[in-house]
This record gives sequence, C-alpha cells and structure tokens, in this order.
Amino acid sequence: MSSEHFTPVPLDKAYRLLNHGPTVLVSAKHAGERNVMAAAWVCALDFAPPKVTVVLDKATRTRALVEGSGLFALQLPTVPQAAMTVAVGTDSALTMPGKLDHHQVPLFDVPGFEIPLVKDCAAWLVCKLIPEPHNQQSYDLFIGEVAAAWADERVFRDGHWMFDSAPAQLRTLHYVAGGQFFAIGESVAVK
Amino acid sequence: MSSEHFTPVPLDKAYRLLNHGPTVLVSAKHAGERNVMAAAWVCALDFAPPKVTVVLDKATRTRALVEGSGLFALQLPTVPQAAMTVAVGTDSALTMPGKLDHHQVPLFDVPGFEIPLVKDCAAWLVCKLIPEPHNQQSYDLFIGEVAAAWADERVFRDGHWMFDSAPAQLRTLHYVAGGQFFAIGESVAVK
Repeated sequence: MSSEHFTPVPLDKAYRLLNHGPTVLVSAKHAGERNVMAAAWVCALDFAPPKVTVVLDKATRTRALVEGSGLFALQLPTVPQAAMTVAVGTDSALTMPGKLDHHQVPLFDVPGFEIPLVKDCAAWLVCKLIPEPHNQQSYDLFIGEVAAAWADERVFRDGHWMFDSAPAQLRTLHYVAGGQFFAIGESVAVK
Repeated sequence: MSSEHFTPVPLDKAYRLLNHGPTVLVSAKHAGERNVMAAAWVCALDFAPPKVTVVLDKATRTRALVEGSGLFALQLPTVPQAAMTVAVGTDSALTMPGKLDHHQVPLFDVPGFEIPLVKDCAAWLVCKLIPEPHNQQSYDLFIGEVAAAWADERVFRDGHWMFDSAPAQLRTLHYVAGGQFFAIGESVAVK
C-alpha cells in the first residue's frame, strides 16, 4: 500500500478532491503495460454518481491504455512531486519506453482494480471510462465515473481539505506552463 | 471600463488564465436580461483556438441565457469577492429576480460583445458557445471557444501569473464546498 495514510473517501465527497482545481497524474494499465502522464485539464462533472472530465491528447500513450482498458486513475501530486509531475508530463512512453523507471515513479496496486496508483499523492480517484467517441475524437475529452476514491487523511478527512493544518509538503499543485506551478494557499471561509 | 488594469491577453495565452483551476463567475445576457452565477467546474479544453468547458446546471437562469445568446463570459473572482461569489452561486434569479442588485454585483460592458463583465476580477474570458446538444443535455457540459481575454495586468502579464509579487487581494479563489475556498498560494518552479 502507498502508506499508512491511504484512507477511503466516500463517493459523495469525491468531487471535493478536484473542486479546487489541482493538476493530476493520470495512470492506466492495459495488456500488462502501465503508464502515467500529467494533466492540468481535469474537472469534476457531477456529484452523484461522481463523474469527471479529463483531456488526453492523441499523442499520449496513456490515452491508448485508457481506451483499451476503460479505466483510468487520477491522483493529486504534492509539492515535493513537482519535478516528477513535469517529467512524466514531458516525456512520452512512445519515445522513452522506460519512462516510469527513468523518472523513478513509485507505483502501488490497490485491491479490486487493475490499475497502478502513484505513491505519496494527496488523493486518488479510480474512474471507469464512459465512452463518448465524439468527445474523445473531436476534443480529446474523456468522461469517467468515479468508482473509488482515497486521500491522505493528514490533508483530507471528514470531507474537507486540511491544508492549513497539514504538513506544507502535502499541498496540491496547480500548473500554469513552463514548469511553473502554484501550491494551493490559505483558506478563505465565507460565513 | 472595469479599471485602469483591464488589459488584453493574447488568445494563445488564454488557457493559462484557467490552467491553475480557479473558480469562476459565469455571466451572460439574452433579450435584455443579464445574469451572473458561480462555477467551480470550469476547465481549459484546447490551446489554439482556445476552448473551455463549463458545467451549467439546468436549474440555473444563466444557462438559459447562454443557450439563448450563444455567448458566455468567465471571470476569475479574487479574495475580497469570496462572499459575492458564494452569494451569486447560491441565489438564483429564478427565485430572486433582483439578485444582481441585491448582491451589488458591479458590472461593466466591453466593446464588441453583448455581455456584461464583473468588475474587479483577476481575468476575463468571453466565449462563444460551440453547441453540443448531447453534452449539454446529458452532462450539463458546455463547450466554448474563447473569443477574447483580458487580465488585471498587476497579477497576469507577459503570459504569466504574478501572484507572488501582486497585491495579496488579487489571488484567485478555488472553491471546495460549504462557503469554503482556498486562495492560490506560493509559486513552485521546476527548472
């Protein structure tokens, strides 16, 4: 398992893992092949059952694995994983077959799903592809239904992100361009 | 005009306004009726021409205005606008016809587009609806092409967010649930 902090998130709270707009790592596995890419263009789409959208370019190997298996995982990298996130978002398994080993991407398996997850993230969502060929072909837009979700309970518990009290290295990353992210910042509460 | 800081953003940089996952205000106008709602489920979809997705629930009045006019604007509220963002995201013009006046939402017009924009935001994108009836009906998912974009040049200029050097009140908001946001935080750069 990833760590002692890997904790289930109820499906009706799963949208909250993506609501604040984090960049994600997308993982997939098909016919024994595993891959991980980065994606900033990911978004919640529905509450119940929870659905998500993610943009997967035709040039990525991960997309082919998603199309083959009908399954993908989204996971939220944290500040210490910024360089790895850029690396797996820049290099393609099509031109660098040993990409995951080269960048030392630490994977683990979760019972019940044939998909690798990336260790040490803030949260994880395993999603079943809802095939929408027009969206996939015209817009590179993929829709998934969240089948299971987990979070590091130091930073997300009882349905709430605890960035203000959790260790700073558990803050999520929000990509702009050119290797530049912002970490999520301070809480702003409206009474 | 909104302020002396309202500055055009080149279309090839427009995706960067949404890339870090901010919550937005969605505005629209049709047949003389104007409205503004909040949306956390918004995402970049393409670079060139820039496209976006946004989820607009069937229960919202703004959605009907977008369907009628084929035009919507996304704008990024900042920390001092958190309460207004929750207010326009909670109250509907269907049950509170004077919603915009009641919540004192400051609007301005921009030449060339029949759409109201909200003053004092960090950035603005005017989008032309790309009709996709299946997505709209099945998923409440709307796709738009960005026709024009602007930002407050104190916080976004030369294609880059300047949150670290701009006034703190210009940080964007990232919604979770229950009136609770996080402001965007510190820069994390990968060399």
